Amino acid sequence: MSRETEKLARIRAEMKAQGVGLVALGPGAHMHWVLDWHPHPDERPTLLLIGAEEALALVPSVNAEQFGAATSVPLETWRDEEGPEAALARALDRLGAPEVVALDETMRTDFSLPVLAALPGARHVYAGALVGKLRMVKDAEEYAALKASARANDKAMQAGIAALRPGVTEKEVAQAIQDAFAAQGAQVAFALCASGPNGAYPHHSTGSRKLESGDSVVLDIGAKLAGWPSDMTRMGAVGAAPEGYDEVHAVVEAALEAGMKAARPGARAHEVDDAARGVIEAAGYGEYFVHRTGHGLGLEVHEPPYLTSASEEVLEEGMVFSIEPGIYIPGRFGIRLEEIVILRAEGPEILSELPRALAVV
Amino acid sequence: MSRETEKLARIRAEMKAQGVGLVALGPGAHMHWVLDWHPHPDERPTLLLIGAEEALALVPSVNAEQFGAATSVPLETWRDEEGPEAALARALDRLGAPEVVALDETMRTDFSLPVLAALPGARHVYAGALVGKLRMVKDAEEYAALKASARANDKAMQAGIAALRPGVTEKEVAQAIQDAFAAQGAQVAFALCASGPNGAYPHHSTGSRKLESGDSVVLDIGAKLAGWPSDMTRMGAVGAAPEGYDEVHAVVEAALEAGMKAARPGARAHEVDDAARGVIEAAGYGEYFVHRTGHGLGLEVHEPPYLTSASEEVLEEGMVFSIEPGIYIPGRFGIRLEEIVILRAEGPEILSELPRALAVV
Repeated sequence: MSRETEKLARIRAEMKAQGVGLVALGPGAHMHWVLDWHPHPDERPTLLLIGAEEALALVPSVNAEQFGAATSVPLETWRDEEGPEAALARALDRLGAPEVVALDETMRTDFSLPVLAALPGARHVYAGALVGKLRMVKDAEEYAALKASARANDKAMQAGIAALRPGVTEKEVAQAIQDAFAAQGAQVAFALCASGPNGAYPHHSTGSRKLESGDSVVLDIGAKLAGWPSDMTRMGAVGAAPEGYDEVHAVVEAALEAGMKAARPGARAHEVDDAARGVIEAAGYGEYFVHRTGHGLGLEVHEPPYLTSASEEVLEEGMVFSIEPGIYIPGRFGIRLEEIVILRAEGPEILSELPRALAVV
Repeated sequence: MSRETEKLARIRAEMKAQGVGLVALGPGAHMHWVLDWHPHPDERPTLLLIGAEEALALVPSVNAEQFGAATSVPLETWRDEEGPEAALARALDRLGAPEVVALDETMRTDFSLPVLAALPGARHVYAGALVGKLRMVKDAEEYAALKASARANDKAMQAGIAALRPGVTEKEVAQAIQDAFAAQGAQVAFALCASGPNGAYPHHSTGSRKLESGDSVVLDIGAKLAGWPSDMTRMGAVGAAPEGYDEVHAVVEAALEAGMKAARPGARAHEVDDAARGVIEAAGYGEYFVHRTGHGLGLEVHEPPYLTSASEEVLEEGMVFSIEPGIYIPGRFGIRLEEIVILRAEGPEILSELPRALAVV
């Protein structure tokens, strides 16, 4: 059985279990998971349509060569001087009207709404809960790719920490990180450097502020290596940490460790958030932890499972996600510590080999 | 009046004219046009909501610092451990229920469907026909940016043509083009090299085929310079053109010239397609022209107006679009010639300075 046929069979089993009659995927990570490829997304409607018995791809004829080479699924092509409407109607007609259609939640609105309009009786759900669910547990090849990407991130993080000194700008630190990624053949995705009081903004826009002695610095960086993402946050300090820093760092570290302990196969995602948030609340910093505890990572840097206070998702052995509590104190500093882990039977395996202690440079 | 205020006023005038009560834009080109910026898109619902009187932005609190710095529009923030539902409801409540909502057609399905679900009485249209309509006519600064980008493309095209010789692979030609873009500080977007019979696939995937003497080669390349895209197609040949090439090239050139002649303020988009297609059909190659004649270009490399056989869009002075007829003969070769033009009162102004004649190397 080809990899594609196996993926389609797994999707169909899940469709049956969830009562979904049709899955519609756009050019993105869900489609990539099925085909090991996806076309460059543009405005031309392009859909992988998976029915209970049959699958079809709606493809603009200008891309039919590329698409056909990547799949054994039959193509329903359309010429772009005519538009996709007739071809979409033919494809949906052939697959039959479902009661429930799972739409790729990441795809363009003008890819989804024509599908819904053509299926007036159907209810919609999102493919994140179906294809995304299957994507959460990775295979050995995928773990190896994510580990290699994490190692590249470790090296870039070390380059970022080594660049910390008084007078250097946030952007210069980010550049050192980007250069370290590039030297390893990785495509940088983000290199956040938030120094001193800027650290109190979780997604600070790395800027021209010059680092000063006594600043703490949040470094949250990620790249893609051979298509697989990394994501990690570590803390550095220029000469010395600011007043009161060590106590707060210890709280974030304890929160991360509590999250790690709660992350077990069979636990619910919110239990990891509860555990980490509980430590921070008990220490009196609850109002300063302004984001979720984690997110999945795989073909995308953010994907299911999301570790929020409300998520009832049951964690399974083999899932990959971040655990990243933080405390952000306006006007003073922010602290975030982030690990990417593979959930093993006995608990989380951390991909990074770098310590989480404050790196004073 | 700030640039943002002026853009919002222009959108509101268009909303009134079209009977649209609410515009919802995601992090993409439409939002960028209004704010001169848009946040990095991720899975966290982020919307610019423009009502008849007031505008609001739905923003995850982790990005509120960045977003607030880019706009004077008030923010309705949500914490990501809670989710956006309540904040979206508050925002829509404050703006009032519209009869017609214009959704950003490019935004994620899971950004759009909650807006529609919260407005059960509303009919939807796409923002492409409203914000996209306003974006079609550029200003002097935008023309200058697009021209600069086109000049960088001219240089990269010359580098690609200079790289043509027997034994070089398509990928090596593409690399020469990429290097030429990089040397000019431009981010390459695509560098299509389709040699010999591969030229018959309009969107051929540049591969490892080695060029042979007597091949014609389609080069379709684009990059972003300071955020503004370029897009151009020229034809080269290795030593000599294949048999029968010159006659077909002359037909494509005549089709392009007919399209240029039909492109006048007040004409409909399909008239440009009709003119170009008519020349190709009259020459007996109609079945081999398998795509539309052109697309707009601005913040995005493909944007309105689209020049298809069905488009009733009225062309206006100041619009920027491609005219790019082609003939693709399976097993033999393909020919496409593409210019980006600004539509002036007297007709199209071509941005490139390169000739369209076959470059025999």
